[in-house]
Amino acid sequence: MDRKAFHAKIAAMGSEFSPELIEATNAMLAPLLPAPDEARTTRDIAYGPHERHRLNLFRPPFDKLRTDTPAPCLLFVHDGGFVMGDKGAPGAPFYNNIGAWAQKQGFVSATMNYRLAPEVRWPAGREDVIAAILHLAGHAGEYGIDPARIVVMGHSAGATHVADTVAAPGAAAGKFAGAIMSSGFYDLGSAVRDPFKPQYYGDGEDWSPMSPLPGLLESEIPCLFGVCEYDMIECQQQARLLADAWLAAKGRWPVIHVQAGHNHISAARQVGSPVDSFGPVLADFVASR
Amino acid sequence: MDRKAFHAKIAAMGSEFSPELIEATNAMLAPLLPAPDEARTTRDIAYGPHERHRLNLFRPPFDKLRTDTPAPCLLFVHDGGFVMGDKGAPGAPFYNNIGAWAQKQGFVSATMNYRLAPEVRWPAGREDVIAAILHLAGHAGEYGIDPARIVVMGHSAGATHVADTVAAPGAAAGKFAGAIMSSGFYDLGSAVRDPFKPQYYGDGEDWSPMSPLPGLLESEIPCLFGVCEYDMIECQQQARLLADAWLAAKGRWPVIHVQAGHNHISAARQVGSPVDSFGPVLADFVASR
Repeated sequence: MDRKAFHAKIAAMGSEFSPELIEATNAMLAPLLPAPDEARTTRDIAYGPHERHRLNLFRPPFDKLRTDTPAPCLLFVHDGGFVMGDKGAPGAPFYNNIGAWAQKQGFVSATMNYRLAPEVRWPAGREDVIAAILHLAGHAGEYGIDPARIVVMGHSAGATHVADTVAAPGAAAGKFAGAIMSSGFYDLGSAVRDPFKPQYYGDGEDWSPMSPLPGLLESEIPCLFGVCEYDMIECQQQARLLADAWLAAKGRWPVIHVQAGHNHISAARQVGSPVDSFGPVLADFVASR
Repeated sequence: MDRKAFHAKIAAMGSEFSPELIEATNAMLAPLLPAPDEARTTRDIAYGPHERHRLNLFRPPFDKLRTDTPAPCLLFVHDGGFVMGDKGAPGAPFYNNIGAWAQKQGFVSATMNYRLAPEVRWPAGREDVIAAILHLAGHAGEYGIDPARIVVMGHSAGATHVADTVAAPGAAAGKFAGAIMSSGFYDLGSAVRDPFKPQYYGDGEDWSPMSPLPGLLESEIPCLFGVCEYDMIECQQQARLLADAWLAAKGRWPVIHVQAGHNHISAARQVGSPVDSFGPVLADFVASR
């Protein structure tokens, strides 16, 4: 499928989030995605005691390692509305695509699971991201990672967990060099009360105290944001709030990339495919840390 | 120079626009840029009667042409505050880099000069962009261009000329399939009265009637916008105004790419270099028309 045909199909689906949009987008992308080099992949490494405290580690093949110097590492935090989602089983297209793509770039990468609502509530996602960062930093030598060049990336609910981590890094302070947030929720005060978020944020009237936005604005950690042309309207409104608040607080725009011809599902699932326009932006950000 | 070192130098310069920033950025980028294949380059083609009505045409080498089908064409409109600037003399780094990059992508491209203030005033820039589009469309067969896939791109003042063309395409209506505007001025009512703009827009109190913004919002032509992390503050504020107005008018964000680690000068001059993160976004947009 060429880019023109792919983007035309995405455009025709529009931005309203539905099971049909999810299935159709997945069906288009799955056959286009590269598979990781399994010989350089280690699955289900425990970074904590819970059964969801597991990450997959993808190391670049030896011919991609320029020297024996350690590589940057991208830690990916999946989506799923705080209540579902997965880092990628063997043979699954998503998010093994992140690992396969990173192997080609010469980066180490990891895709992590985390505890889900309603079993856990805010800020469990942040706690798990912090634990995974500390695991990678603590095993940097073993995994071939430069511990000064760990970048964490999340999509949708995963982006919100990353934003929470930037806002309040706790024990991970100084342990990651950048953060990428794709189609996330940053201002909980204006977040849509869909069937999922209350399972993570509770039934309270005001979610504002759980918003990562104030802490994001105070942080000096380099951030890259993404949102899609055909993203959920809520994500587009969140991006607008973020951009306005960032410009007001910092005197400049946030680094935000609006993906032409992509929707909420293709945003991170395109990475590594022949229609991938996000990967080069991610690669540049990671390589620059 | 690796990406990390390059972006660190750009960040250290900040966003305040000065002769020093221009010179230092040019000096960093010039040695990194590819040169076009001159055997497939035709310079100073007249697209109108004025001595500034000239364009350079870059055709991809034969091994980049998949078949004998015509290629998309990117028409580039340079910057220079409405009063200066150049499409690129032989051997100059800028904007021959656009032609060299497009040749590698398998696109035809053209870089155009246009009439400058104070000799001419608004809307002369738009008139010249329209004339250049009509020239390319009229010579599509000769130049190997698919006339349905002409995309026009401008940077800074050039982006404003492109925005004016989208807003009021006149005889070029239906002759171009997309528009890319990098670090432009869209809302003239809030534009800064620097020493340059009054030469093009005049000394009148209200420049609003010359703003492309209302027409941009009404147009259905696919648009991609760019702005830089270390861009002039005015361009960041223009991007904010654009994004807010676009979301209000169209119910979604504009496709806008904020370039991490770039400034007002490196924005379009990076294209084709080893530190280029804009080129892949441009290539995807052009290939999708």
